[in-house]
Amino acid sequence: MNGMMKAIQKTRREPGLDLVDVPIPSIRPDEVLLKVSATALCGSDVHFYNWDEFAQKRISPPITLGHEFCGEIVEVGSQVLDHRAGDYITADSHIVCGKCDICRMGLQHICQNLKIFGNDVAGSFAQYVAVPQTSIWPLSRDVPAEIGAIMEPLGGATQGVLIEPVTSRSVVIFGDGPIALFAVGVARAAGARKVSLIGKVPSRLEIARRMGAQATYTPEDDPVQQILDETHGIGVDVVIEMAGAPQSVKSAFEVVRKGGRVTTFGLTPKPIEFDLNFAVTLRQVTVRGVAGRHMWDTWKQLDGLLASGRLDPTPVITHRIPLEDCEQGFKWMTTGTRDTGKIVMFPNGMPG
Amino acid sequence: MNGMMKAIQKTRREPGLDLVDVPIPSIRPDEVLLKVSATALCGSDVHFYNWDEFAQKRISPPITLGHEFCGEIVEVGSQVLDHRAGDYITADSHIVCGKCDICRMGLQHICQNLKIFGNDVAGSFAQYVAVPQTSIWPLSRDVPAEIGAIMEPLGGATQGVLIEPVTSRSVVIFGDGPIALFAVGVARAAGARKVSLIGKVPSRLEIARRMGAQATYTPEDDPVQQILDETHGIGVDVVIEMAGAPQSVKSAFEVVRKGGRVTTFGLTPKPIEFDLNFAVTLRQVTVRGVAGRHMWDTWKQLDGLLASGRLDPTPVITHRIPLEDCEQGFKWMTTGTRDTGKIVMFPNGMPG
Amino acid sequence: MNGMMKAIQKTRREPGLDLVDVPIPSIRPDEVLLKVSATALCGSDVHFYNWDEFAQKRISPPITLGHEFCGEIVEVGSQVLDHRAGDYITADSHIVCGKCDICRMGLQHICQNLKIFGNDVAGSFAQYVAVPQTSIWPLSRDVPAEIGAIMEPLGGATQGVLIEPVTSRSVVIFGDGPIALFAVGVARAAGARKVSLIGKVPSRLEIARRMGAQATYTPEDDPVQQILDETHGIGVDVVIEMAGAPQSVKSAFEVVRKGGRVTTFGLTPKPIEFDLNFAVTLRQVTVRGVAGRHMWDTWKQLDGLLASGRLDPTPVITHRIPLEDCEQGFKWMTTGTRDTGKIVMFPNGMPG
Amino acid sequence: MNGMMKAIQKTRREPGLDLVDVPIPSIRPDEVLLKVSATALCGSDVHFYNWDEFAQKRISPPITLGHEFCGEIVEVGSQVLDHRAGDYITADSHIVCGKCDICRMGLQHICQNLKIFGNDVAGSFAQYVAVPQTSIWPLSRDVPAEIGAIMEPLGGATQGVLIEPVTSRSVVIFGDGPIALFAVGVARAAGARKVSLIGKVPSRLEIARRMGAQATYTPEDDPVQQILDETHGIGVDVVIEMAGAPQSVKSAFEVVRKGGRVTTFGLTPKPIEFDLNFAVTLRQVTVRGVAGRHMWDTWKQLDGLLASGRLDPTPVITHRIPLEDCEQGFKWMTTGTRDTGKIVMFPNGMPG
Repeated sequence: MNGMMKAIQKTRREPGLDLVDVPIPSIRPDEVLLKVSATALCGSDVHFYNWDEFAQKRISPPITLGHEFCGEIVEVGSQVLDHRAGDYITADSHIVCGKCDICRMGLQHICQNLKIFGNDVAGSFAQYVAVPQTSIWPLSRDVPAEIGAIMEPLGGATQGVLIEPVTSRSVVIFGDGPIALFAVGVARAAGARKVSLIGKVPSRLEIARRMGAQATYTPEDDPVQQILDETHGIGVDVVIEMAGAPQSVKSAFEVVRKGGRVTTFGLTPKPIEFDLNFAVTLRQVTVRGVAGRHMWDTWKQLDGLLASGRLDPTPVITHRIPLEDCEQGFKWMTTGTRDTGKIVMFPNGMPG
Repeated sequence: MNGMMKAIQKTRREPGLDLVDVPIPSIRPDEVLLKVSATALCGSDVHFYNWDEFAQKRISPPITLGHEFCGEIVEVGSQVLDHRAGDYITADSHIVCGKCDICRMGLQHICQNLKIFGNDVAGSFAQYVAVPQTSIWPLSRDVPAEIGAIMEPLGGATQGVLIEPVTSRSVVIFGDGPIALFAVGVARAAGARKVSLIGKVPSRLEIARRMGAQATYTPEDDPVQQILDETHGIGVDVVIEMAGAPQSVKSAFEVVRKGGRVTTFGLTPKPIEFDLNFAVTLRQVTVRGVAGRHMWDTWKQLDGLLASGRLDPTPVITHRIPLEDCEQGFKWMTTGTRDTGKIVMFPNGMPG
Repeated sequence: MNGMMKAIQKTRREPGLDLVDVPIPSIRPDEVLLKVSATALCGSDVHFYNWDEFAQKRISPPITLGHEFCGEIVEVGSQVLDHRAGDYITADSHIVCGKCDICRMGLQHICQNLKIFGNDVAGSFAQYVAVPQTSIWPLSRDVPAEIGAIMEPLGGATQGVLIEPVTSRSVVIFGDGPIALFAVGVARAAGARKVSLIGKVPSRLEIARRMGAQATYTPEDDPVQQILDETHGIGVDVVIEMAGAPQSVKSAFEVVRKGGRVTTFGLTPKPIEFDLNFAVTLRQVTVRGVAGRHMWDTWKQLDGLLASGRLDPTPVITHRIPLEDCEQGFKWMTTGTRDTGKIVMFPNGMPG
Repeated sequence: MNGMMKAIQKTRREPGLDLVDVPIPSIRPDEVLLKVSATALCGSDVHFYNWDEFAQKRISPPITLGHEFCGEIVEVGSQVLDHRAGDYITADSHIVCGKCDICRMGLQHICQNLKIFGNDVAGSFAQYVAVPQTSIWPLSRDVPAEIGAIMEPLGGATQGVLIEPVTSRSVVIFGDGPIALFAVGVARAAGARKVSLIGKVPSRLEIARRMGAQATYTPEDDPVQQILDETHGIGVDVVIEMAGAPQSVKSAFEVVRKGGRVTTFGLTPKPIEFDLNFAVTLRQVTVRGVAGRHMWDTWKQLDGLLASGRLDPTPVITHRIPLEDCEQGFKWMTTGTRDTGKIVMFPNGMPG
């Protein structure tokens, strides 16, 4: 498709973003062109906005950002046989080779040749995005665009929580970002015994409670002691670490019981000091690193959770804005009271 | 404790039951004496009531029946260090040796030297019952006696459903006995995508819906075809067979998808004709036989489900009666419209 | 590639096979053309040779048979980017869609749209065969062609044995076909406690012992009783049923211990009478149907077993013949003393 | 049994050990008295010998050391029904309550109320030791006493390696202590693709090769680079960290592949700096802490490995000494060329 479109790009090697007019992407034979209905801001995009050390190593401007999105197919490559113009889809943010050893073991999401939208190829903060057919996940028309746009992070929360069963188990989640808030909903939908969340922003703790958390704490509440007291000093079955702060990692291993599981999902700003003996070895703890979503078993799980009627991520969506307000979105996320859950943009017009 | 008590015994090698006065059991050093608060009628007791072939092989009258119960400890053997008079407890119906190869693998519930209350030793259809300390599960005082009495069958449903994860998976349950109805509640609490139940008695299908089943069918509804249609011919992820009828076993394997799981829990009256190729081998199906409850991991899971607030078994309890009405209970279960869920007796007086 | 080639086809709807001259297959853009180095006869091909009821439903003559093979790529379709002429490869016999629900769960080998070489598309009993790139498994040049040709059935044995861990566990295998003999080697390589095999043909039992079986039995030896005696009446941890006879299925469940695992792999000629209560439910047995090989985790496992130096399938290969002797091969398999393990053909000339 | 016996005790709060005459232990009703045939020195005992910070916190002199042993029962408590005088047994070093939440989950080996021989109660560096019946593992008479004495650490190696399957997987072991050397044998017996060990003492690397290691490295060999090169930069499937050095922990996570498993078993002298993002989270690594042996599933596994004929720990036993030479044993372990594998003592006389 010829023509120009609006996009949010990182054009300069310095903090900030630019709203630019660029050509609509042309597609390869194995890709589709998607007209983006909705696309969401991710915490990892903040690095690019801030142009920190991580960003400087990770991306090469100019590049269109964005990797959480849904939309309608408007053009189909010659090798794409299973999708048609008019189809409503979302996509994993991971573009995988399908051929490396890791892919062939069924771990496509951590492919040796992984590319990510908005990091390695043009992303979804735009009116159109080119999507390889191997990344497509079809959506039903009754999924609102704002939900379609957040399936990717919701899938991350799903793998983080469900990588081992949580039904009937006590669960503590560290962090108050959108994925931690989604994780509360996933754990509750899965029948966890009790779900507690530790976070900092009061409005986000309120969202956590709306998502089903039976208890929320700030670090000032001495949550480790409270949780240990409540469990007679034993600790909880499952801990999901989604804050990435050195202190929360430490606390995560203090509240998990002997033989319990810690999922690490949050990224720490730098290496941490870690008492491996106590945290893991002597108490026979299992640590499960989680990056992304199994393609496609996690997506199938997410589909089942939504179909069950037990998981509604809507309370986490706090802002719905046009593409033009993108930079404002990042300001809300990073400054002031930070009263943000998930921010969703609508590059081709706000929903009616 | 000296004295006499009332008990429901099988005294004669013929159909029927007897309400008798017998001595209160004396306890061994590793047992406690329990004053029975509540005890429930089980489908397996019907064999003894009817004195069918199974019963004739299984038990030797005279014997006090009953294996689902809870109560208060009134006397403690000299080797029992962790329980006291006044403690409120329930018990697994399985009395295990703890020493055989199977027990040492962590499969105590299928111990090589298994004994069962009301089958091999005096049971709980009585005012008092002797309980080995290794079968005790402590109860919180806020669990009503009628719930304490059904923890054992509820635990059977829990293992049947949760022996492999069901969160986000589609589940079909065959059968409308109390354990099938409990299984609906467990599957829903665990976040199954959709729970369907196939049964015969209309009032029990109504209970299934109250327990959370999104769909119920009678065999006349051609449920296999309906479920296959709804799943685009693929079938469902998980099937729990709790009816034990040859036709329901056949249907169970017709509705499970390739690579799916069937739990067999119901007992068939005799060997069945079985197309192993289609049912299991060619479609790579997993079959998990389930007998009893893991001691004690299943109990821990059940505890977690109840604590989650997502599982309430109360709708399944349809009758609350004194010990004297026991025979009437079995008549309700086996004749007429069979509008029974679980029947609970109170041998030491109805609750206030 | 233009020209004619020799092939073994089923041309007529009656017993027998034909050696014919047919055009070399033309390939689609996503396929490669393989010059077949070696190809092996499978028990399932016997149905086609005999033209029994199964065969009449399964295939439509004329069709080139054969689904176990290896060879050298001589031509590459335009969409094939990862393989080149000259590459030495084998292939899974399963051609999968990669897009159905079952494939997306990671169960490609039981794909809803499964096609099989020599059943649905032209097979490998020929000088050349067209192979879709999604079925290719690269081979190292130091794998002899006769081993390359049997990777597929060896992979079946690998999944059959390793679908749950067997290290340190006692294993009994029913059947004396090539896959059962391979399974002995896999179980021994994996460190099973003891591997026993029950079969009928004395020369095959001898091969089983060369593959590492510590005990072999014929049905006349009353193996069930012997194995139960040896295990103090408890039975063995793992049973692999690869004979498909009603009696061997029955015996399989008689020798497995409580809580043990039975893999069903052999196909029974018709439905069997099955005591589900004893076999599965009351003793909490797990049954794992196995069909094919996980793509590609099982192949990866097989690769590791061969690399370990602990698995050598060579003793199972009893006959090496030219394509022209194919019909003779089936006669050896089905008549007389049946002293066959695996029969391998070399369509482009016997190895030097 | 009355009388005096020889024992190695920690009597003083300073480095060193004492050979003392003390009364033979009296037993409780649930214990047996064991005449110790053989008992082995453990690396953890070195802390007590050295009287380091760990030791000062862990034990209260006077105490008889030793927790790896076997022997013959000479006296049986009144509640012990399943063992007799004359029985030949070994024992887990862990004395467990069997009643806490952790025990009831089947994790007795990390019991909330754990006691350890030679740490919390009198140990086996003596002619006699009292053993609770719940810690007993019966031995066959054809197990030599020196093997009976090392079942406990061999069981630790077994759980360390087999906590997730290693069959067909590539395995790297860090450390050259006896348990690391045992782990080589376990991994090879289980059919690992390739087993490599990284250690410092040349004579121990030689033992590793005799136990089946296909490759051994010293830190000077740059093993991380060599292993990555050999695996095309991907890394290995399984890493077992048994050295406990900060550098080896770091290296362990550098050689494990994406989605692979690291078992931590070695204890680090103090907290380490840890790049959790790279080590675990971003590459979706699983970390399994291992402490002790599952009671009794690991013992059952060990029994199966020994019965398979594929595991012979004998090469690891380098010294066989009388009880009187105990202090000399610790000197060999801690000074000079440290050419020690396992050192076994015979408190009631050297084997004939």
